[in-house]
Amino acid sequence: MNDRRVTAAVLAIGDEILSGRTRDANSQYIVHYLFQIGIETREIRVVPDIEDEIVAALNALRARYDYVFSTGGIGPTHDDITADAVARAFGVGIAEDPRALAVMMERYRPEDLNEARRRMARIPAGAALVANPISKAPGFWIGNVIVMAGVPAVMQAMLDEVAPKLVHGVKILSEAIEAHGFPESAYAAGLRKLAEAFPQLSIGSYPSFREGKYYNQIVLRGRDPNILAEAAEQVRAMLQRLG
Amino acid sequence: MNDRRVTAAVLAIGDEILSGRTRDANSQYIVHYLFQIGIETREIRVVPDIEDEIVAALNALRARYDYVFSTGGIGPTHDDITADAVARAFGVGIAEDPRALAVMMERYRPEDLNEARRRMARIPAGAALVANPISKAPGFWIGNVIVMAGVPAVMQAMLDEVAPKLVHGVKILSEAIEAHGFPESAYAAGLRKLAEAFPQLSIGSYPSFREGKYYNQIVLRGRDPNILAEAAEQVRAMLQRLG
Repeated sequence: MNDRRVTAAVLAIGDEILSGRTRDANSQYIVHYLFQIGIETREIRVVPDIEDEIVAALNALRARYDYVFSTGGIGPTHDDITADAVARAFGVGIAEDPRALAVMMERYRPEDLNEARRRMARIPAGAALVANPISKAPGFWIGNVIVMAGVPAVMQAMLDEVAPKLVHGVKILSEAIEAHGFPESAYAAGLRKLAEAFPQLSIGSYPSFREGKYYNQIVLRGRDPNILAEAAEQVRAMLQRLG
Repeated sequence: MNDRRVTAAVLAIGDEILSGRTRDANSQYIVHYLFQIGIETREIRVVPDIEDEIVAALNALRARYDYVFSTGGIGPTHDDITADAVARAFGVGIAEDPRALAVMMERYRPEDLNEARRRMARIPAGAALVANPISKAPGFWIGNVIVMAGVPAVMQAMLDEVAPKLVHGVKILSEAIEAHGFPESAYAAGLRKLAEAFPQLSIGSYPSFREGKYYNQIVLRGRDPNILAEAAEQVRAMLQRLG
């Protein structure tokens, strides 16, 4: 059995997330998507539109994880500095890319390709383009870093575009077991023993309390369906004993 | 005028966010809350329930920012390891805290304070408690790190509890200007000039496109209301010139 783990980090770029103006829905979408194809997100970072910060985060993350997925900062305005930051992080040049310009010409008439729009064709040297079927201006892929737009619909289309080309890990399976009616403390000791007995699994307990009642969930995550099923059986047996 | 900047990072701890099971609503709540009281979030990180990862993130963030606000990992189960990680990051001991036990006794009968629940009274040496009016088990505050629960209602109550004790910066003001009907590229050049003319401000452009129409926003953020008003006026004038 192929038990290769493939890891990733998500890097969301933008002052609007750090001021609370914009909800970072992209990161959750990406981690869920990656989880489905067996790629394990180990870290999410959100950084402001400051080149030094983006470069530092890119270099820290790309050294540690198999993939880095960034969102945001590749539009036409002055605060869109992701492409420059990526070029600096990789120590490569950046210039208007004829391939990018060509795909943008499918959408824009030459006279509408003003300076701002042409900025979106600036791509770090050596990067592959990531197609943008919605508004054409492409993302790109360099080394293990995949640079996507911040607009959710465009980001999602770009992720669909790159997904078949990623090295997938073994799909991570998860099983959620309802532990309704119990406080966490009722099963904490038993669950700790199970977590020790199944070191291959990540076992989490997620409390929820409304209208005077517990609606907790115990979630098991792992790659081997047999081990997962065995552990789930034991969690259910434990809850039955308790209750 | 007091122009002190107060900075913060938010550290969300939990496998459930990194698998996409749980939406990290806490981080957006916190950054928005802090923004309102003049504390500028410069970074958000999400890390898994792995002690080394939590310790490394805590030490990186607490060295760089005035405050670090963590959420998650202070419940009674085996995956709740935040308090231990904080103690290790600060190089201090950790033990059952009589003050924490005392507040928990307000809720639990002594015979209900089982081993799992008592774990929630383990507090790093030297930390101040952060009251939890909802379910009693406290958060804590050590150095510049404020450790809160992951359950949103509890986290929010803890944040209300600590907010009056934080050093506030000058409130950051923001003004959102509708740039409906324009593609970003129409005003990108003009906006860049304004961003250069007003270096005290953070100026962002946020595109939105639905049903064939642009609903972009230009957002200005800064501390001086006069400068903000002047820049907003110039943005409006620019948009008017464009059409």
